[in-house]
Amino acid sequence: MQLNALLTSAGINVIMCVLFLSLYSVLRKQPGNMYVYFGRKLAQNNANNRGSFSFERLVPSLGWMAKAWGHTDDDILSVAGLDAVVFIRIIVFSIRIFSIVAFVCIFVVLPTNHYGDIHSTFAPTSLDKYTIDNVHEGSLWLWVHCLSLYIISGSACILLYFEYLNIAQIRLAHFSQFPPNPSHFTILVRAVPWSIEESFSDSVDKFFSNYHSPNYLAHQMIYKTGKLHMILDNAERAYGSMREITTDQNCMPTRIRCCVCGVTSSSFKIYSNIQNSRLGRTVRVQKEKECAAAFVFFKTRYAAVVASQVLQSSNPMLWVTDMAPEPSDVYWSNLWIPYKQLWIRHIAILLAAVFFMVLFIVPVTFVQSLTQLEQLRHDIPILSEVLKRPFVKQLVSGYLPSVILMLFLYVVPPIMMLFSSIEAPISRSARKTSACFKILCFNIWNVFAVNILSGSIISQLDVIFNPKDIPTFLAKAVTSNIFTTYVLTSGWAGLATELMQLFPLAYNFVMRYVFRCKIDMEYVPSFPYHTEIPRILLFSLLGFTCSILAPLIVPFLLAYFFLAYIVYRNQILNVYCSRYDTGGKMWPIAHNTVIFSLVLTQIIALGVFVLKKSPTSSTLVLPLIILTLLFHEYCKNRFLPIFKNISAQDLIDMDREDEQSGLMEGIHEQLMSSYYQPPSSTGEDSSNGNSMNSAGQNTNSI
Amino acid sequence: MQLNALLTSAGINVIMCVLFLSLYSVLRKQPGNMYVYFGRKLAQNNANNRGSFSFERLVPSLGWMAKAWGHTDDDILSVAGLDAVVFIRIIVFSIRIFSIVAFVCIFVVLPTNHYGDIHSTFAPTSLDKYTIDNVHEGSLWLWVHCLSLYIISGSACILLYFEYLNIAQIRLAHFSQFPPNPSHFTILVRAVPWSIEESFSDSVDKFFSNYHSPNYLAHQMIYKTGKLHMILDNAERAYGSMREITTDQNCMPTRIRCCVCGVTSSSFKIYSNIQNSRLGRTVRVQKEKECAAAFVFFKTRYAAVVASQVLQSSNPMLWVTDMAPEPSDVYWSNLWIPYKQLWIRHIAILLAAVFFMVLFIVPVTFVQSLTQLEQLRHDIPILSEVLKRPFVKQLVSGYLPSVILMLFLYVVPPIMMLFSSIEAPISRSARKTSACFKILCFNIWNVFAVNILSGSIISQLDVIFNPKDIPTFLAKAVTSNIFTTYVLTSGWAGLATELMQLFPLAYNFVMRYVFRCKIDMEYVPSFPYHTEIPRILLFSLLGFTCSILAPLIVPFLLAYFFLAYIVYRNQILNVYCSRYDTGGKMWPIAHNTVIFSLVLTQIIALGVFVLKKSPTSSTLVLPLIILTLLFHEYCKNRFLPIFKNISAQDLIDMDREDEQSGLMEGIHEQLMSSYYQPPSSTGEDSSNGNSMNSAGQNTNSI
Repeated sequence: MQLNALLTSAGINVIMCVLFLSLYSVLRKQPGNMYVYFGRKLAQNNANNRGSFSFERLVPSLGWMAKAWGHTDDDILSVAGLDAVVFIRIIVFSIRIFSIVAFVCIFVVLPTNHYGDIHSTFAPTSLDKYTIDNVHEGSLWLWVHCLSLYIISGSACILLYFEYLNIAQIRLAHFSQFPPNPSHFTILVRAVPWSIEESFSDSVDKFFSNYHSPNYLAHQMIYKTGKLHMILDNAERAYGSMREITTDQNCMPTRIRCCVCGVTSSSFKIYSNIQNSRLGRTVRVQKEKECAAAFVFFKTRYAAVVASQVLQSSNPMLWVTDMAPEPSDVYWSNLWIPYKQLWIRHIAILLAAVFFMVLFIVPVTFVQSLTQLEQLRHDIPILSEVLKRPFVKQLVSGYLPSVILMLFLYVVPPIMMLFSSIEAPISRSARKTSACFKILCFNIWNVFAVNILSGSIISQLDVIFNPKDIPTFLAKAVTSNIFTTYVLTSGWAGLATELMQLFPLAYNFVMRYVFRCKIDMEYVPSFPYHTEIPRILLFSLLGFTCSILAPLIVPFLLAYFFLAYIVYRNQILNVYCSRYDTGGKMWPIAHNTVIFSLVLTQIIALGVFVLKKSPTSSTLVLPLIILTLLFHEYCKNRFLPIFKNISAQDLIDMDREDEQSGLMEGIHEQLMSSYYQPPSSTGEDSSNGNSMNSAGQNTNSI
Repeated sequence: MQLNALLTSAGINVIMCVLFLSLYSVLRKQPGNMYVYFGRKLAQNNANNRGSFSFERLVPSLGWMAKAWGHTDDDILSVAGLDAVVFIRIIVFSIRIFSIVAFVCIFVVLPTNHYGDIHSTFAPTSLDKYTIDNVHEGSLWLWVHCLSLYIISGSACILLYFEYLNIAQIRLAHFSQFPPNPSHFTILVRAVPWSIEESFSDSVDKFFSNYHSPNYLAHQMIYKTGKLHMILDNAERAYGSMREITTDQNCMPTRIRCCVCGVTSSSFKIYSNIQNSRLGRTVRVQKEKECAAAFVFFKTRYAAVVASQVLQSSNPMLWVTDMAPEPSDVYWSNLWIPYKQLWIRHIAILLAAVFFMVLFIVPVTFVQSLTQLEQLRHDIPILSEVLKRPFVKQLVSGYLPSVILMLFLYVVPPIMMLFSSIEAPISRSARKTSACFKILCFNIWNVFAVNILSGSIISQLDVIFNPKDIPTFLAKAVTSNIFTTYVLTSGWAGLATELMQLFPLAYNFVMRYVFRCKIDMEYVPSFPYHTEIPRILLFSLLGFTCSILAPLIVPFLLAYFFLAYIVYRNQILNVYCSRYDTGGKMWPIAHNTVIFSLVLTQIIALGVFVLKKSPTSSTLVLPLIILTLLFHEYCKNRFLPIFKNISAQDLIDMDREDEQSGLMEGIHEQLMSSYYQPPSSTGEDSSNGNSMNSAGQNTNSI
């Protein structure tokens, strides 16, 4: 890559960013855009303060940056929950580690690459002079790169450790200090065994009052209330009332003769039979509506955790217990799905996701083929004439590929979200975590693997089947500065678009000024962690892998992270609301990805050192890989269990505190009414927990 | 392979087996060999019945077979525990499935191979006529093989399912019906945090009486009593008593003047100071001897299970709880090892085991090179003259390789056992299970992979890095009938040697008639599950993989399993004793191995069908692979949790039964004295649970 190409790209993107940020600082001051840029605040305060016009509203300013900067982590925790804090901590971690990386790379690696051992083959303006390509084979200066790798890996591990510790503490404090959450006292039991004699509700009641008697409080069945079920239900009700009329007509003569009027005892018998059959039908109808799942409430947090963790039945596919999600986090329609289906759904989705990822090579290949017009003209002769025109030529080769690729990439998050929905998680947050993981894998595979194999993908596929060559191959690709442009265009421009909220802005404008509709103030989007976390992590992966090989990327990346810090804080505080929380479960994903990035960097460095014929450096990298993996294993042992469960010690302490302060009875009362099942709960429409509901009144207390 | 070669090999092995079995039936009647062949019975009854001489003692008989056959599974369960039953069930499963396989192969596959589409290249006596090699490329008869594969896989899965169900039921019945086991009421807590203010014992007491108060009964600390610690301890005691004498001499004049004789109060002060310092030293010494681990006893089984499963502390590397092993199963010396070391030990052992397995190619290559004398003569010219003599030639090429390989293979189980010891499991049974798994992996890798790559291993290693070719490659190797000979020599002959107990017999003879020593009647070996289960599973793996490709192996294998059934029942009932039990945890290993064998068979069949250019058959195998993996996943969900934990329902039922029958108090009393720590417990010497012990009296009841 040439220096002027990079400078042009950087210049354009910087100008675009400044323009967008200025535009944003003006647009946010317009009252008409309040719903776009202050959705969360408006939804919270229900305020509608239309300020009067002033000239100040048209002047770009930096005040919003200072405001976003000024809030502490505690503010974010109280406003947007633990996930937002974890997200910001991921950015902070990236800023810290890439500051170290930038220092090491600019003051140590870059001069070594430039002055160490000069290759004469590169032009003076070529940026390849600053990559490791400029160091000749067998050079003694390669120990500098090896040492830098040690410093970067070491600092990353130290920072990761303290960040993990910090987030674990925040998580625990969040659980213990905030007002008691009904989900801590509740478990979800699924796969309640079906019995011909009693309803699911009776089974649940019997089981838990028998085996968890001192701590069992009550339970609440889950009902099938989907659209199809509603229709079936109505039909059945209509049929039932028709039959009732018929039955009533038959019985009428018997029933109106009471015992005073000399009726025989057999008529009572008939009457009671009818009553029984009616009762029976009601029970049957209720039974059919009930699912084999229920929320079970316990008197203490500890009892709930114990019941959720211990194997309940000698058939592990019956009486399956889990901690309940928060009321607003429950994915109601998934709770009807029979538990027996879940394992097969998991496998099917795993296969589908892998298939989708592999299949995505097809559009990428197609897009890449567009840039090679000669090939295309040769393959499809009909297009030959059309493609000769200069305008079509420019359009097809320069503009169309990236548009097509962008369109394809926009499809990925919804599809992954759909996959995660089909897996039937019990909570929305679990769905988001699962989608986040899938999108992360996709991003790494797509941007990192497929983009590298650009142009002639299929012919290079055999590299995958020859694992020995992968490090060498990756090393060649990484040093080509291809990712610097990616950071500039996708990273910086992406942040500006995120800040501008182009789609909601356009929607707002069209609805308000074209259709003159009133916009639903209640609807505030929730933060798209499942797309933004993979994006941040992908950039840090690119940063690590390029760091010692093509260090020019690092300053641009650092600028990206600084901007991201401001922008995302602003968005979290103003735009998005947080209805549910994963409880910081995104951090282990981020931690594992950083470790993966480090190990990948080390493996690529190993490949480069082998290519450069430096046996000392390549031998020295091996212990580093082992040490990094050991560190990962240690963190898995030390921290991961806390992110899955809260410890008995903490739970019992919390319970005791509540009991001593006399809060426990209030909590129990509140508990019974906290899980409202929406009357027609589909996947999406139950996010508002305040809707009134008849099923919610079926809490069976003992 | 030629027919006469196979017949010769079979003939020799049958004759050898008959000879050995006859010899055994005579030897077992000799009173002098009682300790060798009836160790378990003698140890149990302490009887020493030397019968008088009769001619009958010299006549071979089949009575022992009838006796071994006659016992039921319940007899074995009561005599030798659950593991023996599981072991016998593995053999029964093998007999059942290979009966079906034999039926399908002999009546369907073998005729198809022989008559289906005759290749003219094989000689009339060649056994390759009966393999799939005899079916020509693109033959339509390959659907027979495909159908047979479906029948075999289907029957195997059905049998596996019912066997899993059966063993799960036996396991549960074993736990609930047998006398209450102290290990069900006990947990092992490790990584007790160190505190300067209180001893480990006080910490444990405080923690469990605080957080598990209603059910906590008592605890018993674990003490360091290894040899090094004994020496240090003695030295400290000697130093302590010396100091005591010095201190006593200093204090003597003060101490003998009592208050009646007009002594000042300060002398009391001095005295009490001395007493305090002594007390302090005792506490200090005790503290240093105590480990950060303890057995904690609970009032009910359920409470113990809950305490063992719930995360105790917000630092998951402190207060680590597990269910305690049975008293005779405890691996005392491993309990001293700091918990923090364990994860790193696990990784180190994993790497070491993999390294060992890979390194084992070296002796195999060496042995294989011996059979290629010309090559050897070329490589080492000095040997040229020696190797020309016909006797040396025969010895080196025919006899030496197998002896060397056997010697190398004898080293494997002890090394794997050592590896498993270093991993520091808390029980002997866990060590055996872990060693069993390692030896199984080794066997499959060694016999199946390395033997196939025989001769020119290193040159063929690149096959491993080219995964596409593996099925084809394995297919070529499997059809070569190489494994039929292996079953005859290693399988049949191995059983005969097992029955004869050659080493103990020789040892007994030498000790008794040469050295005239008395043999320790107390020492009875425990059943070597860790070597025998991998052996059985390896043979079933060979059977499955060869079944439809080279079906001639199946009848020999079936005969092996029948013989194994008789021989191992006899050995379990007469020879070996069972001191500890894994509770049937070997079955999931066996189940997984059978599934692995099935999938491997299907992959190899896929390779063969591709080689034979039969697209229909190769396409039809793919769904079979997926179905088998789905079945495995289902079994993992349905059964595996029961083999890890007993369900709350069963535990609570057992507890209630004991409480209602008034047995509970007796159990609690017995509990306190059940875990005796031997005074100098090394890895091996603590198997006898009856040794008297001072540490055992330190049970701290509350």
